[in-house]
Amino acid sequence: MPDETNSTSSADSTTAADPTVAPTPVTVLGLGAMGQAIAGAFLKAGHPTTVWNRSAGKGEDLVARGATRAATAADAVRAGELVVVCVVDYDASQAILEPLAADLSGRVLVNVTSDSPERARAAAKWAAGHGIAYLDGAVMIPTVMVGTPEALLFYSGDEAAYKKHEALLKSLGGQSAYVGADHGLAAVYDLSMLDFFWTSMAGLVHGYALAAKDGVPASALAPFLQSHISLLAVLVGETAKDVDAGVYPGEEGNLAMELEGVEHILHAAELRGLDVSVLRGVRDVAKRAVDLGHGADSWTATVEGVRNPGA
Amino acid sequence: MPDETNSTSSADSTTAADPTVAPTPVTVLGLGAMGQAIAGAFLKAGHPTTVWNRSAGKGEDLVARGATRAATAADAVRAGELVVVCVVDYDASQAILEPLAADLSGRVLVNVTSDSPERARAAAKWAAGHGIAYLDGAVMIPTVMVGTPEALLFYSGDEAAYKKHEALLKSLGGQSAYVGADHGLAAVYDLSMLDFFWTSMAGLVHGYALAAKDGVPASALAPFLQSHISLLAVLVGETAKDVDAGVYPGEEGNLAMELEGVEHILHAAELRGLDVSVLRGVRDVAKRAVDLGHGADSWTATVEGVRNPGA
Ligand SMILES: NC(=O)c1ccc[n+]([C@@H]2O[C@H](COP(=O)([O-])OP(=O)(O)OC[C@H]3O[C@@H](n4cnc5c(N)ncnc54)[C@H](OP(=O)(O)O)[C@@H]3O)[C@@H](O)[C@H]2O)c1
Ligand SMILES: NC(=O)c1ccc[n+]([C@@H]2O[C@H](COP(=O)([O-])OP(=O)(O)OC[C@H]3O[C@@H](n4cnc5c(N)ncnc54)[C@H](OP(=O)(O)O)[C@@H]3O)[C@@H](O)[C@H]2O)c1
Repeated sequence: MPDETNSTSSADSTTAADPTVAPTPVTVLGLGAMGQAIAGAFLKAGHPTTVWNRSAGKGEDLVARGATRAATAADAVRAGELVVVCVVDYDASQAILEPLAADLSGRVLVNVTSDSPERARAAAKWAAGHGIAYLDGAVMIPTVMVGTPEALLFYSGDEAAYKKHEALLKSLGGQSAYVGADHGLAAVYDLSMLDFFWTSMAGLVHGYALAAKDGVPASALAPFLQSHISLLAVLVGETAKDVDAGVYPGEEGNLAMELEGVEHILHAAELRGLDVSVLRGVRDVAKRAVDLGHGADSWTATVEGVRNPGA
Repeated sequence: MPDETNSTSSADSTTAADPTVAPTPVTVLGLGAMGQAIAGAFLKAGHPTTVWNRSAGKGEDLVARGATRAATAADAVRAGELVVVCVVDYDASQAILEPLAADLSGRVLVNVTSDSPERARAAAKWAAGHGIAYLDGAVMIPTVMVGTPEALLFYSGDEAAYKKHEALLKSLGGQSAYVGADHGLAAVYDLSMLDFFWTSMAGLVHGYALAAKDGVPASALAPFLQSHISLLAVLVGETAKDVDAGVYPGEEGNLAMELEGVEHILHAAELRGLDVSVLRGVRDVAKRAVDLGHGADSWTATVEGVRNPGA
């Protein structure tokens, strides 16, 4: 059981500790870049932290800052009231966790490993079968942001466990959000947000490559792109409203005209010898929505093209 | 020649007129949604404005506000010191302009019709052959923003003509930017920016469609996306720097790991029956960059995948 007077908190961590959060013994399994950042944030918030990693040689720095290194994963689990696992994927996390079912029973397990909603739901079923309170999590920020007030992490699953440990979990990120009882939801939010993010980053890099072909450096284009970023900030909400309502008013710009614009970009990129597979996808989805009768609607109507895949 | 005491400016337009810009007779050819917005902004700034459209019945409102409607395109051109053409594409603008070469000679022609850099350069060659000072333009904003201080328009080509009429052109948008002597450049900026913009919008809509499949409404996801918008605002500049330098440091997140993330999204979307053509393009470009040896670099290294199209 937790020794709340545990003296492993270093001077450095005490300064950042939130006096309203009782020190709670926590365990972190997996000391990759993200696992280390998580353990570091727990230490900084004053929580007795036990760490373990499959291969030796990781986490020296954490031990120097007051963490306890466990000899085995089972020892690590037994030291924590709440156990966070953060490894490469669910094949790895299940490989670690399955032999520890008995040790995990009665504790709270938080799996912040990224994977699919399906894997999270399967893990939840396994946990339920062993009396383990299970939360699935998703870390939406790079390691350097872990533990900051701006850091966003999603959690889904066992709501009572989340409520009980909310303050503790907020030491990993001030913007932590519980998104529902379905254990797959943290991954759904994660994947959907990254769908937008990586597709946007692909468009950004492609735009720069296109400009470079005519001698325009990316740094000349970059300042102008801020106006489109501001526009996106507004369109995120407007598009959401229209997607949810299933109506796509096109007064401020219609899909048929916008499709023409995409064709121009695609043609120019092709002519310059660039890869156009992403743009071709954008064009095809928009064209399918036009063919489905949405030419006079807004760009948001492309959701109908997304929902009706091509042959 | 211009009659600078021209009394067509209505009371409404005089209030918005900038006293430092001498009223200059302008002509607008093409009264679609954008041509009308442009003519309206000129009127509002106090410039004697002559308008013409291929089909009758457009621009009543402009005439009511003080514009002069010309009976023929040639009459319209002869009334303006600066002639703006804004029609659907360059096939349409050249169809209008070519018979008017003699009338345009000695005047400034500004073509803000959207099309490709190649078409703009060809039009510039034609204009040079007829003694027409030629600027190619690109309107980066919707009609409702025309004439506002925030409105962005690009111009390229005849620099002396731009300098001479800069204040006049700024009545169309306060953020007007001259981007170079190559007449194709306005279109290059236009297409490159819209490449980012439409690809991002495709990712946004796809992310919403993905979330909806597991019962998450777009409006629940939207507020969280603002954190990625803020991140994009920073990455626009950082990515530009790395693209220009041709080095892609991957300390804060490497492409091999990010490619795994994209595979998860792609797999989840496929499993849910959504179109994945855009995501497949994103994945293939990233994978090619990894295969080219950029697995430990940042996402920006996907520019190498863009520059080396797949088979
Ligand atoms: N890094 C980020 O910026 C970031 C951001 C958001 C989310 N995430 C997510 O966080 C998770 C961890 O990422 P990371 O950056 O920490 O990765 P990483 O630095 O590559 O570390 C991977 C970790 O997984 C462990 N592992 C791999 N296979 C294993 C197995 N079969 N059995 C036991 N342990 C195994 C590794 O242990 P060994 O040391 O023994 O190999 C290591 O601890 C991933 O799901 C990632 O998507 C990361
Ligand atoms: N609307 C926007 O929000 C927006 C934003 C940025 C850029 N733009 C660009 O602005 C340009 C005009 O767009 P718009 O919205 O004004 O389009 P629009 O409302 O569809 O109007 C099209 C115009 O083109 C004319 N036209 C078409 N074919 C012609 C031909 N063969 N000969 C002569 N005239 C012809 C039409 O004349 P008729 O009336 O006789 O058919 C009409 O004046 C396009 O290049 C567009 O990409 C528009």
